[in-house]
Amino acid sequence: MGINICLIQVFYVVPLVLLVSSHNSIVHGRSLLSINNSIAKKPDPKDAVATARWLVSQNFWGVLSTISTDLGGAPFGNVVSFSDGVPNKGKGIPYFYLTTLDPTAKNGLKDPRASFTVSEYTLGTCGKIDPENPTCSKITLNGKLKLVHQKSKEARFAKKALFSKHSEMKDWPKDHNFEVFKLEIENIYLIDWFGGAKPITVKQYLDSKS
Amino acid sequence: MGINICLIQVFYVVPLVLLVSSHNSIVHGRSLLSINNSIAKKPDPKDAVATARWLVSQNFWGVLSTISTDLGGAPFGNVVSFSDGVPNKGKGIPYFYLTTLDPTAKNGLKDPRASFTVSEYTLGTCGKIDPENPTCSKITLNGKLKLVHQKSKEARFAKKALFSKHSEMKDWPKDHNFEVFKLEIENIYLIDWFGGAKPITVKQYLDSKS
Repeated sequence: MGINICLIQVFYVVPLVLLVSSHNSIVHGRSLLSINNSIAKKPDPKDAVATARWLVSQNFWGVLSTISTDLGGAPFGNVVSFSDGVPNKGKGIPYFYLTTLDPTAKNGLKDPRASFTVSEYTLGTCGKIDPENPTCSKITLNGKLKLVHQKSKEARFAKKALFSKHSEMKDWPKDHNFEVFKLEIENIYLIDWFGGAKPITVKQYLDSKS
Repeated sequence: MGINICLIQVFYVVPLVLLVSSHNSIVHGRSLLSINNSIAKKPDPKDAVATARWLVSQNFWGVLSTISTDLGGAPFGNVVSFSDGVPNKGKGIPYFYLTTLDPTAKNGLKDPRASFTVSEYTLGTCGKIDPENPTCSKITLNGKLKLVHQKSKEARFAKKALFSKHSEMKDWPKDHNFEVFKLEIENIYLIDWFGGAKPITVKQYLDSKS
């Protein structure tokens, strides 16, 4: 009887402990990767449009490059947070929350040409594949960085989108004059397999239901 | 006697299981963040130079921005792998392994002005802090993207540095003509705390023992 209770305990307790600790490791891993703690399933790389939209909807930060005002027109990349909508309901257009105390917004207000880059590597789904390997997908959106008018319906959508993934933004200092910006997309550069960039039109990208 | 064996098993087996699975979770978490599976301790943000060097030595991929040849001179950012040396022995100069089949190298060979950006967020040490919060550090190095001559001592150093962090590079297709490039740094933009960019000269940065 004693040994039976023992075996029951070992067969119950050990798996339970394993389950709880593996869940913790998954949550710990994911909380570093995704603010909403779950990544939607990656589309088939053959579906370039869906892959492009997936990269933009699942990521929450990237590098926004502008033409510098103080480095003689050199390109200037900067880490920025972004959102294209509330989790899993993105529209593909990246919205940013920038202050003109920061060079990126200052540059963009002078010369709106900009480039925004995100990688699949940040989502954790590339595994052991190198970030520069084409099967670890990446996207660069080129276009115009535009200020979104404070009182517009679009600004309200954008703030909802941004604050749903970046809750601390609500408390950022008012005297820093953070404003909503967006990238009006004109060109899409997607790498998700061998063979070079996949051809995607902006229309295909924006019209996609993914 | 039966119950004693049982208790011993539970007190031995359960902690052992916990220990093994938590180690796995730590390794699993880190393998997504750092190719050498351990991040050196972050310097005090007051030590701007050490923080800058830490960001560059601990990261292994970032976004390299160039002036586009095919988008009318707009900035163009691209995900690239890099290395500034073998693990924890970096010299602060980012080396890249690029093919001219890729726009970044093509752009750089025409107009060498470039910008390279990495974030602390990829290292996992920002925790719940937003990637755009200034206490989650980030650095942008501006300068000239230069081809490193194949037969030079510098190319041998760079390849050792790159392959130590990106082992699959050794097997990348020979007919893609991957070459070593470097960024000759001219300007450093570091954010690691409130109050704007920290002033760091290139000399301070390169001379640092960190």
